[in-house]
Amino acid sequence: MTYSANLSDLEVARRLADAAREAILPHFRNTATTADNKLDAGFDPVTVADRAAEEAMRAVLAELRPEDSILGEEFAPTTGDSGRTWVLDPIDGTRGFISGTPTWGVLIALSDANGPMLGVIDQPYIGERFEGCRGHAQVIGPYGTRPLQTRKTNALEDAILFTTFPEVGTTEDRAGFERVARHVKLTRFGMDCYAYALLAAGTVDLVIEAGLNAYDIQAPIAVIEAAGGIVTNWEGGPAHDGGRALAAANPEIHAAALALLQRA
Amino acid sequence: MTYSANLSDLEVARRLADAAREAILPHFRNTATTADNKLDAGFDPVTVADRAAEEAMRAVLAELRPEDSILGEEFAPTTGDSGRTWVLDPIDGTRGFISGTPTWGVLIALSDANGPMLGVIDQPYIGERFEGCRGHAQVIGPYGTRPLQTRKTNALEDAILFTTFPEVGTTEDRAGFERVARHVKLTRFGMDCYAYALLAAGTVDLVIEAGLNAYDIQAPIAVIEAAGGIVTNWEGGPAHDGGRALAAANPEIHAAALALLQRA
Repeated sequence: MTYSANLSDLEVARRLADAAREAILPHFRNTATTADNKLDAGFDPVTVADRAAEEAMRAVLAELRPEDSILGEEFAPTTGDSGRTWVLDPIDGTRGFISGTPTWGVLIALSDANGPMLGVIDQPYIGERFEGCRGHAQVIGPYGTRPLQTRKTNALEDAILFTTFPEVGTTEDRAGFERVARHVKLTRFGMDCYAYALLAAGTVDLVIEAGLNAYDIQAPIAVIEAAGGIVTNWEGGPAHDGGRALAAANPEIHAAALALLQRA
Repeated sequence: MTYSANLSDLEVARRLADAAREAILPHFRNTATTADNKLDAGFDPVTVADRAAEEAMRAVLAELRPEDSILGEEFAPTTGDSGRTWVLDPIDGTRGFISGTPTWGVLIALSDANGPMLGVIDQPYIGERFEGCRGHAQVIGPYGTRPLQTRKTNALEDAILFTTFPEVGTTEDRAGFERVARHVKLTRFGMDCYAYALLAAGTVDLVIEAGLNAYDIQAPIAVIEAAGGIVTNWEGGPAHDGGRALAAANPEIHAAALALLQRA
């Protein structure tokens, strides 16, 4: 495996994101495909794109990182012997995808027993790639490359809070979210994984979600931590197994939001 | 005015959109500017960008269409003698703008006494321009140019509905919106003017909003009508003066939604 050993994990992650872009983009806003597939029960365009992208990423890993495990949304996990796992969500935000919004993304993380150490949030249509790993946090976008740095907002009343939909999750999940929402400057909805990318980019302060899978949150964790932020569950513990997530721009705003989430 | 007479209204609208892009983009996600401007009370970055973009567009019109009136969000109206009005919203979706989401847009319409006859919804960061006028409906985006065509969904239970925020407007506005939302397949939030662009592009079926100004809705009306859709107020009359808007992909879905909005 001389070839693959010469590639950094970040470069492998970029090749995964490139492969996913190529597989997904022909299906995005392809209204002809939408009409066709309505007749072909069980395979809507987003499912076709989702599977094609995960297959393309698994093919890259089979070549470049055969010793690593894979946990993906669409297919059964595979187990390698390296102790490392690539965690893949080929399309996070399938409802956004079918609506044509550019708020879905390809999520790629590399984890070990301690959680994610590298993450990529890729938005193929905009052509934006948010990357984070130790010593590296940047976004490559349509207007060039910029460092990612979370912001210093430390009072809830100055904060911008995002989640994907107003229901959040269970009734209890929603109540927790709304306890925080009542204190912030601005609450917005509808961004899927893109909200985590904006938190890393320093334009949003808090993202609160529930009902997540590991593959929904591992890439955001790695990108946000590399940019200076913090992601935990609603008890303040690790969030990388999924469930309820609280992502914050800095420890101060995290503590303020966590206190409200825990006041049941 | 030989020079300006040689330019079509569509070409003038494109020059307006180009001028707005150039004025706005340096301020978008400029976290350094954000920090600076917090100290400079009264001039947040989005206000600076908003005004700079409208000034740039007014300068283009002063040169190319001096005989036309201008109705813009940021400055006092000006009146020409042509009976035509350029209706400008330099940044529709200022909350999205300050949050870093690419869901805001530049709205440009050209109207006469009958309402808007030409519209552009421009998203500078993505590099997408949705255009509509008689015989012309297209989007120019990062992956090329495509025609705009609304879709044929004619049952509410198959429809995707958008609005910007769950409150919609007054309590009564929200109740009307929710009567429709209970019948659709999917309701999503958070898109600002981008939702109207998606309706024209055929990936969304309904957009329902309230509390609009004329400059919020005139460009969407022109783009959506050129793409085969229909926009009215909640009584089925013209929406170009603002207020409550119902935008629909086709007459069937429009009638179904309108009936629910009117059931008070």
